[in-house]
Amino acid sequence: MKNLAASEIKKVNIDRTGFFGRFIDLVRDSVIPYQWETLNDRVPDAAPSHCIENFRIAAGEAEGEFYGCVFQDSDLAKWIEAVAYSLMSKPDEKLEATADEVIELIGRAQQPDGYLNTYYTVREPGRRWTNLRDNHELYCAGHMMEAAAAYYNATGKRRLLDIMTRMAHHIDSVIGPEEGKLHGYPGHEEIELALVSMYHATGDPVMLKLARYFIDERGREPRFFDIEEEKREGARRDGYRDPGDYAQWHKPVREQDALEGHSVRALYLATGMADVARETGDETLLDACRRLYDNLVHRRMYITGGVGSSHYGERFTFDYDLPNGTVYAETCASIALCFFMRAMLAADPDGRYADTMETALYNTCIAGMSLDGHNFFYVNPLEVWPEASRKSPERRHVLPVRPKWFGCACCPPNLARLIMSIGKYVYTTDGSTVYTNLYVAGEAKIKTESCEATLKTETKYPLDGAVTVTASAGNYALAFRIPAFSREKFGITVNGERLNAGVERGYAVIRREWKDGDRVELKFDVSPRRVYANYKVREDAGKVAVALGPVVYCLEEVDNETPLSGVTLPASSELSCRYLPDKLGGIVEISADGTVMTDDGDDSLYRSTPPKKKPTKLTFVPYYTWANRGEGEMTVYVRES
Amino acid sequence: MKNLAASEIKKVNIDRTGFFGRFIDLVRDSVIPYQWETLNDRVPDAAPSHCIENFRIAAGEAEGEFYGCVFQDSDLAKWIEAVAYSLMSKPDEKLEATADEVIELIGRAQQPDGYLNTYYTVREPGRRWTNLRDNHELYCAGHMMEAAAAYYNATGKRRLLDIMTRMAHHIDSVIGPEEGKLHGYPGHEEIELALVSMYHATGDPVMLKLARYFIDERGREPRFFDIEEEKREGARRDGYRDPGDYAQWHKPVREQDALEGHSVRALYLATGMADVARETGDETLLDACRRLYDNLVHRRMYITGGVGSSHYGERFTFDYDLPNGTVYAETCASIALCFFMRAMLAADPDGRYADTMETALYNTCIAGMSLDGHNFFYVNPLEVWPEASRKSPERRHVLPVRPKWFGCACCPPNLARLIMSIGKYVYTTDGSTVYTNLYVAGEAKIKTESCEATLKTETKYPLDGAVTVTASAGNYALAFRIPAFSREKFGITVNGERLNAGVERGYAVIRREWKDGDRVELKFDVSPRRVYANYKVREDAGKVAVALGPVVYCLEEVDNETPLSGVTLPASSELSCRYLPDKLGGIVEISADGTVMTDDGDDSLYRSTPPKKKPTKLTFVPYYTWANRGEGEMTVYVRES
Repeated sequence: MKNLAASEIKKVNIDRTGFFGRFIDLVRDSVIPYQWETLNDRVPDAAPSHCIENFRIAAGEAEGEFYGCVFQDSDLAKWIEAVAYSLMSKPDEKLEATADEVIELIGRAQQPDGYLNTYYTVREPGRRWTNLRDNHELYCAGHMMEAAAAYYNATGKRRLLDIMTRMAHHIDSVIGPEEGKLHGYPGHEEIELALVSMYHATGDPVMLKLARYFIDERGREPRFFDIEEEKREGARRDGYRDPGDYAQWHKPVREQDALEGHSVRALYLATGMADVARETGDETLLDACRRLYDNLVHRRMYITGGVGSSHYGERFTFDYDLPNGTVYAETCASIALCFFMRAMLAADPDGRYADTMETALYNTCIAGMSLDGHNFFYVNPLEVWPEASRKSPERRHVLPVRPKWFGCACCPPNLARLIMSIGKYVYTTDGSTVYTNLYVAGEAKIKTESCEATLKTETKYPLDGAVTVTASAGNYALAFRIPAFSREKFGITVNGERLNAGVERGYAVIRREWKDGDRVELKFDVSPRRVYANYKVREDAGKVAVALGPVVYCLEEVDNETPLSGVTLPASSELSCRYLPDKLGGIVEISADGTVMTDDGDDSLYRSTPPKKKPTKLTFVPYYTWANRGEGEMTVYVRES
Repeated sequence: MKNLAASEIKKVNIDRTGFFGRFIDLVRDSVIPYQWETLNDRVPDAAPSHCIENFRIAAGEAEGEFYGCVFQDSDLAKWIEAVAYSLMSKPDEKLEATADEVIELIGRAQQPDGYLNTYYTVREPGRRWTNLRDNHELYCAGHMMEAAAAYYNATGKRRLLDIMTRMAHHIDSVIGPEEGKLHGYPGHEEIELALVSMYHATGDPVMLKLARYFIDERGREPRFFDIEEEKREGARRDGYRDPGDYAQWHKPVREQDALEGHSVRALYLATGMADVARETGDETLLDACRRLYDNLVHRRMYITGGVGSSHYGERFTFDYDLPNGTVYAETCASIALCFFMRAMLAADPDGRYADTMETALYNTCIAGMSLDGHNFFYVNPLEVWPEASRKSPERRHVLPVRPKWFGCACCPPNLARLIMSIGKYVYTTDGSTVYTNLYVAGEAKIKTESCEATLKTETKYPLDGAVTVTASAGNYALAFRIPAFSREKFGITVNGERLNAGVERGYAVIRREWKDGDRVELKFDVSPRRVYANYKVREDAGKVAVALGPVVYCLEEVDNETPLSGVTLPASSELSCRYLPDKLGGIVEISADGTVMTDDGDDSLYRSTPPKKKPTKLTFVPYYTWANRGEGEMTVYVRES
């Protein structure tokens, strides 16, 4: 059995001057307080949350009706989890007191038998566990378990951990393989991975048993959700059989070859599968994870790490179907992809998982939030035509600017917890090897089999390709991921001496007796480059994207002549870079000579001559910075001539 | 007041050897009999129609419930209309007897007060005229009026004309400006244009009065459909105000600047507007028609004459929004466009209306039917990827092969009546001028102010650009449309002598004292050509389409290497033609050298080098012949390099 990386990383302090420093400050200083106001319905022009009020009503401390989505409780859970990560890196007594207080409220909302869910407690007290498919009871429990484990890891306080342990035991009394229990699993996966976190925090074997059960039972015949529906609503007269792929119960998970259906669900499940596989040494389960990953990364992922090609069902569609303008690519789905990749890195160290994680993180995930931390995208398109967003039924879900908050508020708090726990993603360990998956400035204390290592990382990555890591004394290996984009061209020196390191499974591994202050200097190639989609991706044929390191770029109307659909980037055009510290929070801007189609006085819709083109200067900015300067067109792919 | 062209065209016999001969034979020999079987529920593997049975039940001659759409009656009306046109050009005693018999059934289904509609008579007898917005009573009446006028024109029999005159008078007693009547109009326009046909057949001024009323009242405040809904369902508590644009009641028709909403509705309304404008000399109404046309043809029409960019609402969206793969472009909408164009030609002779009509006719309209006449498309895409049609929610409505028949069977019978009455579209008259709008082989007797002209047209157009017209004696003008694609290059001789004719409003006009046997020879340029969309049409930027005369071409998988999205047609490639009498019913095939992207062993989704290309032979076939050789990819637009 392998060790879980999370529990090994004692502490990661992210450097405020590095790339993520600003994001972390934003989340801590702006998003977490703002979310707290939202949860308490104190933001005048945002949709009401009613989340805290639901807990009060469930605790019998307020009158009223449940309001919100069936999964409203999870917003509070995600907030507590983000708070936990925030406290881990920077103590804040007032914030901790607020969290302690709300955890007490949660405790009072818990029912005598351990049950915790405000929707059922307030609105349908007699109908618990009658609709696992649609009503998110296990999902909400999962999020609160993640919060419990994180809060315990951050503060050492057991209160929420105990609450959720009681809930887990309650679930175990209701669901399981035994006669008389429901042979069920969640309609929205999440609890599987959360139970593994609870297992690490508590050591309670019930946690792992339940997680494994949910994974093993899923998709088995007779299918639980068919039985549940029949019990709830009677046998269907129309003979309809739910294909089940929307929520991944179309087949047993070990027989699934591709991520299907609702993308967040699919990736939470995959994460849980990888976690359980690692904990139990289940190779068939890990193989299934590898297959899901292979299909995803070779067939179903946008260049931005976005996943979920269709708004309908917020779902995966089919291989090579990656439309740019009608896309869904939910922020939460890319966050979930980071979870999955981290779980895979812990179970099966291979740099390609970190490559994918990095792509999702630096593009779709952080594009989900405005640079001021106040506005959020759910949908992360690769092409935006604002008029179509207003008028075309196929694109109405693609917003050209980030709105403040959403009634169904899954993405903003999910992003907050990802950013606040970024340190969890930077490192994983295996035996006495420390894997550096991401290059993030900061200092980390990491426990390995042989010793505790302290690593100090200095870098402006991805704005710059230079990374300096200062190690502490000890006998351990440092495995540095060589990003795929730099595989052909990178340099490593140890204390100034050039190292000709080979790359194994994506990492350059340096094993030695380190002395305090040993310096490893890495140099990656972050010159701007052109990226082409596979020719089977129909919308991108004849087009090119521009990237720099892990960061994908885009054209925005504010910097360029429109229509962006009329822009061409000649294959011969040089991509020039300049660092602009004051633009969009500090970016490397890329520019190139191109052409743009233009009005030539011919108003006809169809004509015998091609549209007129004129030279134009193209200005590319990082995708994650788009839509921070008002409404306008945007595109990631550009025609190449 | 101008004369109606239709009543002036005595008879047009389409030559069996010409382009439309085959289509007319198909409709007569295959579609009309097949539709009759369908209407009678005698086609085993097609969805039941129940249409005739509904009439039997309404007539009290059968037991049972109404089944089908609220507009099911219109299927029979369209069939009778197609039969009428068929009988006009070729007598068929048995067919006429069948039609007479079913007309008698219709008479027996008519209620004592003249009301005729099987849905309300059978299912909701007390609820007549309570939902003009949704329930198609006026629409069904309109179709039956068109059938009545056509059947009278074809056979001289008044039975159906009398039935529908009684219905019109009944409507007049219920709807109109007078106190106590409903100040309403149809939720689906159609009756406006039908009433004008009835007016020509009967001379009854009530017909024109009603048509005008429906047009004038539409969109006026207070809006009838708001009042009707409130009466029917009570005042809305949510304060919702229907924008009304779906069915064109968002503004008074004279204030509308673009075709909006459901495309068939919008174009039926526009046709009725043009008809009424012509009959009443209403210039403001005609100006509104011109504005609608201008916007359509410069902003909202596919190169194939398809209209309606979105599946949602089967509707117009906004200017320059012409997506190729998620398109709707319903067959019926292009048929309705032909109606509108014909009405405009009669009201305001200008060859551009005929250009548009020809585009719709030779592309989207006839693409609606398979070459064997047995299968039909509703949706006419410009790009098909069969896997996406099966799996992508955004493209599920885009079928890669024509199915047999539809439960909601609007398009097939609509196409049948268009094809059978093609002669109506070939000629229009104005005073002593005969306008030839389309070049269709056949013989026509045409009454002008000065005399009756007999014109014999010999041509293989559009397979060939040569047209020979033999005139009969008399003093009249022949106005030949010079198609826009041939405006730069055409020739006309009269009795072998070259004529340097100028083109006025799209026509070359020859006014003289014709002698029997005078021969006009026209020569149009039908060499293959490249067509480019306006640069504001985003999906088509960098792409080109191929056309020959009015016929737009496409690439099909069966003739070409795939993926078609990977195909490029170099700007320098020559387009070569050859006539293939045995391919697809006889076509001019166009071929060119191109390239296609191909597998180069690199399975990665994103890469640093562009996809590999190889030379390939591109084979273009007429768009209207696509999907007659099994399922496969298709595209109209191709990247140009």
